[in-house]
Amino acid sequence: MGLRDGLQSIAQVMPTAQKLEWLRGAYDAGQREIEVGSFVPARLLPQLADTAELVAFAKTLPGLAVSVLVPNFKGAERAIDCNADLMLVPLSASHAHSLANLRKTPDEVVTEIARIRAARDAAGSSTLIEVGISTAFGCTLQGRVAPAEVLRLVKAVLDTGVDRVSLADTVGYADPAMVQELFALTLPVAGDKLNCGHFHDTRGLGLANVYAALQMGITRFDACLGGIGGCPHAPGASGNVATEDLAYLLASMGVATGQDFDQLIALREKLAGWLRGETLHGTLWRAGLPNTMKAADTAAALA
Amino acid sequence: MGLRDGLQSIAQVMPTAQKLEWLRGAYDAGQREIEVGSFVPARLLPQLADTAELVAFAKTLPGLAVSVLVPNFKGAERAIDCNADLMLVPLSASHAHSLANLRKTPDEVVTEIARIRAARDAAGSSTLIEVGISTAFGCTLQGRVAPAEVLRLVKAVLDTGVDRVSLADTVGYADPAMVQELFALTLPVAGDKLNCGHFHDTRGLGLANVYAALQMGITRFDACLGGIGGCPHAPGASGNVATEDLAYLLASMGVATGQDFDQLIALREKLAGWLRGETLHGTLWRAGLPNTMKAADTAAALA
Repeated sequence: MGLRDGLQSIAQVMPTAQKLEWLRGAYDAGQREIEVGSFVPARLLPQLADTAELVAFAKTLPGLAVSVLVPNFKGAERAIDCNADLMLVPLSASHAHSLANLRKTPDEVVTEIARIRAARDAAGSSTLIEVGISTAFGCTLQGRVAPAEVLRLVKAVLDTGVDRVSLADTVGYADPAMVQELFALTLPVAGDKLNCGHFHDTRGLGLANVYAALQMGITRFDACLGGIGGCPHAPGASGNVATEDLAYLLASMGVATGQDFDQLIALREKLAGWLRGETLHGTLWRAGLPNTMKAADTAAALA
Repeated sequence: MGLRDGLQSIAQVMPTAQKLEWLRGAYDAGQREIEVGSFVPARLLPQLADTAELVAFAKTLPGLAVSVLVPNFKGAERAIDCNADLMLVPLSASHAHSLANLRKTPDEVVTEIARIRAARDAAGSSTLIEVGISTAFGCTLQGRVAPAEVLRLVKAVLDTGVDRVSLADTVGYADPAMVQELFALTLPVAGDKLNCGHFHDTRGLGLANVYAALQMGITRFDACLGGIGGCPHAPGASGNVATEDLAYLLASMGVATGQDFDQLIALREKLAGWLRGETLHGTLWRAGLPNTMKAADTAAALA
């Protein structure tokens, strides 16, 4: 999701040609689900103004699930129009964050999600709807977010008939114990509709949180190449979990990821060139794979 | 263990006065076990030549467990002489690493450990002996290290009568699954004599590995302020787990650490000044504590 959550927090606008090269490179490295942008007004996020073009190109790549973020009904209409495979609708569990970010209460967002679902069905569209419960582990504005409130919102959006929900640590407040507690609370209600974790590495716990969620049976994780993204108000602070480090964590444990590490690292180097002046994160690019994970081993692990 | 594992991999020699200030600051921040140096010949590691002086000062701090690394019998004699509370003897599970590092096979090191234990007892000393099984999760020279070999060496050193053993990922090859597997294999043999994990963050998995070990009941972890240390042959690569990030992981989960974060972060800033030109690591220093972990919460968590 570097093309969306990564680039939206970086002031400079990446040219579409570079984004297409990134997308192609990520696909060639083995990625089969990519969040390519966001349908927000271009005046708010000029960095993502070319999302429709990216979706169109991404849809030509065989077997790729193409997702976009949509902040509201209008964005959802565009996602349906361009036949995205999945639209991610954020819903803040923090009342304060929801008001600050979308000028709506969480319950007003739930109502809008119900309208989105109705419009999707009325259009005969097969675009999946995933609701990402953001600030699920706490909020820089509000502080604590009650797990009971997260659970209430998960139930509410499932009642609207969405296809998936995910839990997001938008600000890097989660720890592995919190992750296991919240997933344990939510999974009995959501079942396999909850299969994704979104963790920021702001305080170094991103991969520990991924591991904690993996132990709860979660198998889908958001990440950004070079760990970009995160909070534009904290320059230099770590952002999302780095794609290449996440893939290493999983591959080292024998989990199939389908990623080619050489291509991932080469793509990260390209990205560093495109985003000159921005701080990239992650560790694998510098340390390299262990000599115990040679090409043959990796291929076996990924088979 | 920044004063030992951190400084030994940094070329510049830190003046004794700064080390004493660091030691005092770490103690004031709440640390109650500190590895202050290593009894190796000064011509090999001039950075640690003042270890005896540091031990003498550290022994004046009430309630502090003072540990030193000793690579051989001669070093152990010095640790006993200066009445260190604990001496850490490294034993490489990798045959190749053991030969390269100590010019002895692992079994020759076991024999030396038996001599160290006999000398300690003959001297009526109460200095504890901990054997750190290094390269327990793999080795840059040898590649894979068989868990069975680690287990064999743990048994062998326990037979010599040492007080403790620990498992060390010296080169950053471990992942959480490997950690759980190796501790699960070793704990039934070592019992509570195995209570420490030493993880490098070379490939970003340091804290995930800590969490995995914590789940196995391990409650003692090595760390270096600012994540210094690691491999002198990989400039800029992450080193040991950062003390401040480790303390944050634990405190966030409600585990008592006794650490004062303001003091830890201030000390890290001092360290950055002393080690100007060296790359420090870690994330908490930049992001700060979550607003959900205010002073009152932290005090409660640490109570």
